[in-house]
Amino acid sequence: MTNEELMGVTALNSWKLVVGRFDQGLAGLTDEQLQTQIAPGKNRLLYLVGHLTAVHDRLFPLLGIGERLHPELDEAFITNPDKTVADPLSANDLRKAWTEVNSKLTAAFEKFTPVDWLQKHTAVSDEDFAKDPTRNRLAVVMSRTNHASFHSGQSVLAK
Amino acid sequence: MTNEELMGVTALNSWKLVVGRFDQGLAGLTDEQLQTQIAPGKNRLLYLVGHLTAVHDRLFPLLGIGERLHPELDEAFITNPDKTVADPLSANDLRKAWTEVNSKLTAAFEKFTPVDWLQKHTAVSDEDFAKDPTRNRLAVVMSRTNHASFHSGQSVLAK
Repeated sequence: MTNEELMGVTALNSWKLVVGRFDQGLAGLTDEQLQTQIAPGKNRLLYLVGHLTAVHDRLFPLLGIGERLHPELDEAFITNPDKTVADPLSANDLRKAWTEVNSKLTAAFEKFTPVDWLQKHTAVSDEDFAKDPTRNRLAVVMSRTNHASFHSGQSVLAK
Repeated sequence: MTNEELMGVTALNSWKLVVGRFDQGLAGLTDEQLQTQIAPGKNRLLYLVGHLTAVHDRLFPLLGIGERLHPELDEAFITNPDKTVADPLSANDLRKAWTEVNSKLTAAFEKFTPVDWLQKHTAVSDEDFAKDPTRNRLAVVMSRTNHASFHSGQSVLAK
């Protein structure tokens, strides 16, 4: 493997590890437990699952790798705070959406060459990207990996 | 910049962003507020600061870039749970240690070439590293960046 290939694989491993850990935590929870708040007055676990699924689903257009699978999640899990909008999916369907979105993303990332990783994301203009080539897909995926870690840290508090 | 240089800079930016955000949060808290628990019965904010400082301090020997600055933090903030051991430093000195450790690490990372990023960390044997070259410094720094994000997510709940 070349240095740049190795760096891409290292970043991909980081994404897989974080998503995999959240996935394991989720598998260990019943649908009733997903209704638990991470702390008194804070988001439910279900909200975190919905939020991460919606944010990850947005990666398809943001990285230019496909259409969204679950745009119906945004209103309940991104635009609005927890419990202000009815849950758009049952816990069971949300689990399926979580798995579907992340599996499809990971499969796409596994095919990325270093040049693919370093392409601009679709929310930056050609002009801005020319000035700052770190506004690339790799940066976005690292950012979402950190974001998933951020909410993972919250999710373990509900135990 | 070459592709591999760009990937190194992108990873470094991710580290800086996460540490910088925690740093900003910390700057907005009084020493009294650091005694607040992130949720009832959970770690104090001060414990999270101590924990992240100690874990980051361990990166110096783990990455082979120097001696530890604050080994006195481990007993209170890694080995034992919160409030079972007296705080080894005042809140003010802990803030200084946090800044000192992260500034020195970031300065070292800024000098890393792609080849430096891809060197093995010191907790993996030559033999194991030959089998799996993703056990490199870049993987360790991404892992610690995710770890800091994990606890950042918890720290914002105390507000």
